[in-house]
Amino acid sequence: MAAPIFPTAQDAENAFYDALARGDVELMMAVWADDEEIICVHPGGPRFTGQEQVRDSWHKALGGGSAVLGVHVTQLVALSGPMVAVHSVQENLTPPGEAKPRAPIVATNVYLRTAAGWRMVAHHASPAPGKPDTPQAMPAGPKTLH
Amino acid sequence: MAAPIFPTAQDAENAFYDALARGDVELMMAVWADDEEIICVHPGGPRFTGQEQVRDSWHKALGGGSAVLGVHVTQLVALSGPMVAVHSVQENLTPPGEAKPRAPIVATNVYLRTAAGWRMVAHHASPAPGKPDTPQAMPAGPKTLH
Repeated sequence: MAAPIFPTAQDAENAFYDALARGDVELMMAVWADDEEIICVHPGGPRFTGQEQVRDSWHKALGGGSAVLGVHVTQLVALSGPMVAVHSVQENLTPPGEAKPRAPIVATNVYLRTAAGWRMVAHHASPAPGKPDTPQAMPAGPKTLH
Repeated sequence: MAAPIFPTAQDAENAFYDALARGDVELMMAVWADDEEIICVHPGGPRFTGQEQVRDSWHKALGGGSAVLGVHVTQLVALSGPMVAVHSVQENLTPPGEAKPRAPIVATNVYLRTAAGWRMVAHHASPAPGKPDTPQAMPAGPKTLH
Protein backbone atom coordinates (compact mmCIF):
# COMPACT_ATOMS: atom_id res chain seq x y z
CA MET A 1 0.00 0.00 0.00
CA ALA A 2 1.38 3.41 -0.95
CA ALA A 3 1.92 5.85 1.88
CA PRO A 4 -0.87 8.41 2.15
CA ILE A 5 -0.35 11.95 0.84
CA PHE A 6 -1.59 14.71 3.15
CA PRO A 7 -2.56 17.83 1.17
CA THR A 8 -2.48 20.09 4.26
CA ALA A 9 -0.82 20.14 7.66
CA GLN A 10 -4.26 19.79 9.24
CA ASP A 11 -4.84 16.59 7.24
CA ALA A 12 -1.57 15.21 8.64
CA GLU A 13 -2.61 16.24 12.17
CA ASN A 14 -6.02 14.60 11.79
CA ALA A 15 -4.32 11.37 10.67
CA PHE A 16 -1.86 11.60 13.59
CA TYR A 17 -4.63 11.80 16.20
CA ASP A 18 -6.70 9.18 14.37
CA ALA A 19 -3.71 6.83 14.57
CA LEU A 20 -3.30 7.67 18.27
CA ALA A 21 -6.97 6.86 18.94
CA ARG A 22 -6.70 3.53 17.10
CA GLY A 23 -3.34 2.66 18.59
CA ASP A 24 -2.10 2.05 15.05
CA VAL A 25 1.68 2.49 14.90
CA GLU A 26 1.94 1.98 11.13
CA LEU A 27 -0.69 4.62 10.43
CA MET A 28 1.09 6.87 12.96
CA MET A 29 4.49 6.49 11.32
CA ALA A 30 3.04 7.23 7.88
CA VAL A 31 2.37 10.76 9.17
CA TRP A 32 6.03 11.33 10.09
CA ALA A 33 8.70 12.54 7.68
CA ASP A 34 11.23 9.91 6.64
CA ASP A 35 14.10 11.81 8.24
CA GLU A 36 16.73 10.99 10.85
CA GLU A 37 16.18 14.37 12.54
CA ILE A 38 12.49 13.91 13.45
CA ILE A 39 11.90 14.62 17.14
CA CYS A 40 9.36 13.10 19.53
CA VAL A 41 8.86 13.78 23.26
CA HIS A 42 6.09 11.93 25.12
CA PRO A 43 4.68 13.45 28.34
CA GLY A 44 7.34 13.24 31.05
CA GLY A 45 9.68 11.33 28.76
CA PRO A 46 13.04 11.77 27.09
CA ARG A 47 13.62 12.96 23.53
CA PHE A 48 13.54 10.37 20.73
CA THR A 49 15.00 11.07 17.27
CA GLY A 50 14.84 9.31 13.94
CA GLN A 51 12.28 6.87 12.51
CA GLU A 52 13.50 3.84 14.47
CA GLN A 53 13.51 5.47 17.94
CA VAL A 54 10.22 7.25 17.30
CA ARG A 55 8.52 4.08 16.03
CA ASP A 56 9.76 2.10 19.06
CA SER A 57 8.53 4.82 21.41
CA TRP A 58 5.03 4.67 19.92
CA HIS A 59 5.00 0.87 20.11
CA LYS A 60 5.65 1.19 23.85
CA ALA A 61 3.22 4.08 24.32
CA LEU A 62 0.37 2.44 22.40
CA GLY A 63 0.93 -1.12 23.57
CA GLY A 64 -0.96 -3.79 21.69
CA GLY A 65 -3.15 -1.22 20.03
CA SER A 66 -6.33 -3.26 20.51
CA ALA A 67 -8.10 -0.74 22.75
CA VAL A 68 -9.46 2.50 21.37
CA LEU A 69 -8.38 5.66 23.17
CA GLY A 70 -10.71 8.62 23.39
CA VAL A 71 -8.87 11.54 21.76
CA HIS A 72 -10.34 15.04 21.94
CA VAL A 73 -8.08 17.78 20.57
CA THR A 74 -8.86 21.39 21.56
CA GLN A 75 -7.40 24.93 21.76
CA LEU A 76 -5.58 24.88 18.43
CA VAL A 77 -3.19 27.74 17.80
CA ALA A 78 -1.62 27.45 14.34
CA LEU A 79 1.23 29.34 12.71
CA SER A 80 1.18 28.47 9.02
CA GLY A 81 3.37 29.22 6.04
CA PRO A 82 3.72 27.74 2.56
CA MET A 83 6.29 25.14 3.69
CA VAL A 84 5.88 24.85 7.47
CA ALA A 85 3.09 24.72 10.05
CA VAL A 86 3.45 24.85 13.84
CA HIS A 87 0.39 23.68 15.74
CA SER A 88 -0.14 23.94 19.49
CA VAL A 89 -3.04 21.93 20.91
CA GLN A 90 -4.42 20.56 24.13
CA GLU A 91 -4.89 16.78 24.07
CA ASN A 92 -7.70 15.41 26.24
CA LEU A 93 -7.25 11.63 26.34
CA THR A 94 -9.74 9.17 27.79
CA PRO A 95 -8.26 5.69 28.39
CA PRO A 96 -10.38 2.65 27.47
CA GLY A 97 -13.01 1.90 30.11
CA GLU A 98 -12.86 5.37 31.67
CA ALA A 99 -15.64 7.93 31.41
CA LYS A 100 -13.68 11.20 31.45
CA PRO A 101 -10.44 12.55 30.02
CA ARG A 102 -7.37 12.45 32.24
CA ALA A 103 -5.34 15.57 33.03
CA PRO A 104 -4.70 17.64 29.91
CA ILE A 105 -1.58 17.45 27.77
CA VAL A 106 -0.17 20.37 25.81
CA ALA A 107 1.44 19.41 22.50
CA THR A 108 3.53 21.25 19.92
CA ASN A 109 3.35 19.64 16.49
CA VAL A 110 5.56 20.77 13.60
CA TYR A 111 4.83 19.86 9.97
CA LEU A 112 6.82 20.44 6.79
CA ARG A 113 5.61 20.35 3.23
CA THR A 114 7.67 17.66 1.52
CA ALA A 115 7.70 16.10 -1.95
CA ALA A 116 5.32 13.51 -0.44
CA GLY A 117 2.85 16.04 1.00
CA TRP A 118 2.75 17.42 4.54
CA ARG A 119 4.56 15.36 7.16
CA MET A 120 5.17 15.67 10.90
CA VAL A 121 8.76 16.42 11.91
CA ALA A 122 8.32 17.15 15.63
CA HIS A 123 5.86 16.24 18.38
CA HIS A 124 6.55 17.51 21.90
CA ALA A 125 3.91 16.69 24.53
CA SER A 126 3.90 17.46 28.24
CA PRO A 127 1.39 17.42 31.10
CA ALA A 128 -0.36 20.77 31.50
CA PRO A 129 -1.96 22.28 34.59
CA GLY A 130 -5.71 22.85 34.57
CA LYS A 131 -8.66 20.72 33.64
CA PRO A 132 -9.25 18.71 30.49
CA ASP A 133 -11.73 19.99 27.95
CA THR A 134 -14.64 17.60 27.66
CA PRO A 135 -16.55 17.13 24.43
CA GLN A 136 -19.63 19.33 24.34
CA ALA A 137 -22.76 17.49 25.34
CA MET A 138 -25.03 16.89 22.38
CA PRO A 139 -27.01 20.07 21.90
CA ALA A 140 -30.63 19.84 22.88
CA GLY A 141 -33.04 19.70 19.98
CA PRO A 142 -34.98 22.77 18.96
CA LYS A 143 -37.62 23.81 21.43
CA THR A 144 -41.01 22.65 20.41
CA LEU A 145 -43.92 24.99 20.80
CA HIS A 146 -46.90 23.36 22.38
CA MET B 1 18.23 50.53 19.53
CA ALA B 2 17.33 48.54 16.45
CA ALA B 3 16.36 44.92 17.03
CA PRO B 4 19.20 42.52 16.29
CA ILE B 5 19.24 40.55 13.04
CA PHE B 6 20.16 36.89 13.41
CA PRO B 7 21.75 35.56 10.20
CA THR B 8 21.18 31.89 11.17
CA ALA B 9 18.83 29.91 13.40
CA GLN B 10 21.82 28.98 15.56
CA ASP B 11 22.58 32.68 16.09
CA ALA B 12 19.00 33.15 17.30
CA GLU B 13 19.33 30.13 19.59
CA ASN B 14 22.61 31.41 21.03
CA ALA B 15 20.95 34.77 21.78
CA PHE B 16 17.96 33.00 23.34
CA TYR B 17 20.11 31.06 25.81
CA ASP B 18 22.32 34.08 26.44
CA ALA B 19 19.19 36.05 27.39
CA LEU B 20 18.07 33.16 29.62
CA ALA B 21 21.43 33.13 31.40
CA ARG B 22 21.32 36.91 31.95
CA GLY B 23 17.65 36.93 32.92
CA ASP B 24 17.17 39.64 30.29
CA VAL B 25 13.55 39.66 29.10
CA GLU B 26 14.06 42.39 26.47
CA LEU B 27 16.96 40.52 24.89
CA MET B 28 14.88 37.34 25.09
CA MET B 29 11.88 38.89 23.35
CA ALA B 30 14.08 40.28 20.56
CA VAL B 31 14.71 36.66 19.56
CA TRP B 32 10.99 35.91 19.13
CA ALA B 33 9.00 36.62 15.98
CA ASP B 34 6.56 39.51 16.22
CA ASP B 35 3.57 37.26 15.69
CA GLU B 36 0.40 36.51 17.62
CA GLU B 37 0.82 32.77 16.99
CA ILE B 38 4.19 32.32 18.74
CA ILE B 39 4.02 29.47 21.28
CA CYS B 40 5.86 29.04 24.59
CA VAL B 41 5.60 26.20 27.12
CA HIS B 42 7.77 26.34 30.27
CA PRO B 43 8.56 23.08 32.12
CA GLY B 44 5.36 21.79 33.75
CA GLY B 45 3.46 24.86 32.63
CA PRO B 46 0.56 25.76 30.38
CA ARG B 47 0.84 27.04 26.80
CA PHE B 48 1.33 30.78 26.25
CA THR B 49 0.71 32.42 22.86
CA GLY B 50 1.45 35.84 21.40
CA GLN B 51 4.06 38.45 22.34
CA GLU B 52 2.22 39.74 25.42
CA GLN B 53 1.58 36.36 27.08
CA VAL B 54 5.06 35.07 26.22
CA ARG B 55 6.75 38.25 27.53
CA ASP B 56 4.75 38.05 30.80
CA SER B 57 5.65 34.39 31.20
CA TRP B 58 9.37 35.17 30.90
CA HIS B 59 9.07 38.06 33.36
CA LYS B 60 7.66 35.58 35.89
CA ALA B 61 10.15 32.83 35.00
CA LEU B 62 13.22 35.07 35.15
CA GLY B 63 12.17 37.23 38.08
CA GLY B 64 14.21 40.34 38.66
CA GLY B 65 16.91 39.17 36.31
CA SER B 66 19.75 40.23 38.57
CA ALA B 67 21.15 36.75 39.13
CA VAL B 68 23.02 34.92 36.42
CA LEU B 69 21.80 31.40 35.66
CA GLY B 70 24.25 28.75 34.53
CA VAL B 71 23.02 27.57 31.12
CA HIS B 72 24.67 24.59 29.45
CA VAL B 73 22.97 23.40 26.26
CA THR B 74 23.78 19.90 24.99
CA GLN B 75 22.58 17.08 22.71
CA LEU B 76 21.52 19.27 19.80
CA VAL B 77 19.53 17.58 17.06
CA ALA B 78 18.72 20.02 14.26
CA LEU B 79 16.43 19.72 11.26
CA SER B 80 17.20 22.63 8.97
CA GLY B 81 15.75 24.01 5.77
CA PRO B 82 16.05 27.32 3.92
CA MET B 83 13.12 28.88 5.81
CA VAL B 84 12.70 26.79 8.97
CA ALA B 85 14.85 25.13 11.62
CA VAL B 86 13.70 22.76 14.35
CA HIS B 87 16.20 22.30 17.19
CA SER B 88 15.93 19.78 20.01
CA VAL B 89 18.30 20.30 22.93
CA GLN B 90 18.86 19.34 26.53
CA GLU B 91 19.04 22.33 28.87
CA ASN B 92 21.21 21.89 31.96
CA LEU B 93 20.48 24.84 34.23
CA THR B 94 22.41 25.72 37.37
CA PRO B 95 20.59 28.22 39.62
CA PRO B 96 22.63 31.02 41.21
CA GLY B 97 24.58 29.82 44.23
CA GLU B 98 24.33 26.14 43.29
CA ALA B 99 27.28 24.06 42.14
CA LYS B 100 25.62 21.59 39.78
CA PRO B 101 22.87 21.65 37.16
CA ARG B 102 19.40 20.62 38.26
CA ALA B 103 17.48 17.82 36.54
CA PRO B 104 17.67 18.12 32.77
CA ILE B 105 15.07 19.79 30.59
CA VAL B 106 14.32 18.77 27.01
CA ALA B 107 13.40 21.66 24.73
CA THR B 108 12.06 21.92 21.19
CA ASN B 109 12.85 25.27 19.57
CA VAL B 110 11.39 26.28 16.19
CA TYR B 111 12.83 29.14 14.13
CA LEU B 112 11.61 30.75 10.92
CA ARG B 113 13.54 32.90 8.49
CA THR B 114 11.70 36.23 8.37
CA ALA B 115 12.31 39.57 6.66
CA ALA B 116 14.12 40.52 9.90
CA GLY B 117 16.38 37.47 10.00
CA TRP B 118 15.82 34.22 11.89
CA ARG B 119 13.36 34.39 14.77
CA MET B 120 11.99 31.92 17.30
CA VAL B 121 8.33 30.99 16.86
CA ALA B 122 8.01 28.13 19.36
CA HIS B 123 9.76 27.00 22.54
CA HIS B 124 8.42 23.90 24.32
CA ALA B 125 10.36 22.78 27.39
CA SER B 126 9.63 19.90 29.77
CA PRO B 127 11.47 18.03 32.52
CA ALA B 128 13.33 15.00 31.16
CA PRO B 129 14.33 11.82 32.96
CA GLY B 130 18.02 11.09 33.40
CA LYS B 131 20.95 13.12 34.60
CA PRO B 132 22.06 16.58 33.53
CA ASP B 133 25.11 16.92 31.34
CA THR B 134 27.83 18.75 33.19
CA PRO B 135 30.36 20.93 31.41
CA GLN B 136 33.51 18.96 30.67
CA ALA B 137 36.21 19.55 33.19
CA MET B 138 39.10 21.56 31.77
CA PRO B 139 41.35 19.10 29.98
CA ALA B 140 44.59 18.41 31.73
CA GLY B 141 47.63 19.99 30.17
CA PRO B 142 50.00 17.95 28.03
CA LYS B 143 52.04 15.43 29.94
CA THR B 144 55.49 16.71 30.69
CA LEU B 145 58.41 14.36 30.28
CA HIS B 146 60.83 14.42 33.17
